[in-house]
Amino acid sequence: MKKVAVVLSGSGVFDGAEIHESVLTLLALESHGLEYQCFAPNIEQMHVINHLTGEVAEGETRNVLVESARIARGDIKDLADANADHFDAAILPGGFGAAKNLSDFAVKGSDCTVNSDLVSFIKAFAKDKKPVGFMCIAPAMLPHIYGQGTQLTIGTDEDTAKAIEAMGGVHQACPVEDIVVDEANKLVTTPAYMLASSVSEAAKGINKLVDKIASMLK
Amino acid sequence: MKKVAVVLSGSGVFDGAEIHESVLTLLALESHGLEYQCFAPNIEQMHVINHLTGEVAEGETRNVLVESARIARGDIKDLADANADHFDAAILPGGFGAAKNLSDFAVKGSDCTVNSDLVSFIKAFAKDKKPVGFMCIAPAMLPHIYGQGTQLTIGTDEDTAKAIEAMGGVHQACPVEDIVVDEANKLVTTPAYMLASSVSEAAKGINKLVDKIASMLK
Repeated sequence: MKKVAVVLSGSGVFDGAEIHESVLTLLALESHGLEYQCFAPNIEQMHVINHLTGEVAEGETRNVLVESARIARGDIKDLADANADHFDAAILPGGFGAAKNLSDFAVKGSDCTVNSDLVSFIKAFAKDKKPVGFMCIAPAMLPHIYGQGTQLTIGTDEDTAKAIEAMGGVHQACPVEDIVVDEANKLVTTPAYMLASSVSEAAKGINKLVDKIASMLK
Repeated sequence: MKKVAVVLSGSGVFDGAEIHESVLTLLALESHGLEYQCFAPNIEQMHVINHLTGEVAEGETRNVLVESARIARGDIKDLADANADHFDAAILPGGFGAAKNLSDFAVKGSDCTVNSDLVSFIKAFAKDKKPVGFMCIAPAMLPHIYGQGTQLTIGTDEDTAKAIEAMGGVHQACPVEDIVVDEANKLVTTPAYMLASSVSEAAKGINKLVDKIASMLK
């Protein structure tokens, strides 16, 4: 049975992994008979956002691994201990956690840096030509992992696309229900909640991304 | 368009609403073309559980409405302001939040009390014979809302079933992929993660519950 690593970045769209995207990813993987293991970095979140008000919860701190465990129902491991040799593919759901915890893209844009454990982990998949899927804002990290000329989408947001192009990525506009495939890199991206207005709309692109990853594993 | 109230109890299986069950519920509602609005009580959680270790996070406090907003992506209202007249049906996902925040069933068993705003809200649906769905451990609250003789399931756990029978409920053992319907009360229950070992297994019963609610709304 093929096994997929799912990397989370907290639990909640505004400061962590997007919850709907994460659950839809796990559901889609199971529908293809693919096993998975969730991972997250054992680091503090950039900040905590009160998801009712949208404001920063001053003085509050949360750990990315501990919060991601909520989505994974406790079955999650430290990204620092992840070994790509044990997996056939990797998927990153989005949410601001990808741009605030796994990288600092939300703050620094094209001057961002990416979590070094994540870079090494995903580079190992890239090296072995194993399929990898990134969704929502997470693809903004890809030029720092796959290098110049990486083809990807974050949907249609022009400012974000420009920042990605400044890092050497090749952005392709893409509707919510579709995916962009960088065939040479075996890399699949979809806009998800960068464009989705509902969970069923997000599901369309996410299911298509997981379908593509599954077909690449055959 | 018919509208369904979804009542959450935090965000995370061990101290709040079960995340997978909640997302699967929203997805299933959309697949039937049903609108929804999420609600949660504006109260402190019973406690915070570190979902990585399973232990209580001493000294930490979280608000049920604020944490539920993570699942609802900010689009959620205070249960105290909910008016059943504006809705055609109501659904409660499970998770320990149902037994720790919406009630104290996790601590007091058959001597439990149920959040008074929730009791009034759901009683208004019961009175008007509008369909209501409860899943996972949430049905343990039903005898206090629908009264003696209420037919329901929480799966197959004998101790929990006995506590429910002690409150006057009529428990029926039920496999994860099925539902129990109390036709007189238009009440639908399913075990979800009381029995499920994966998100796709939980989805079977939850989809069937939402299918049944949708058919009752036709």
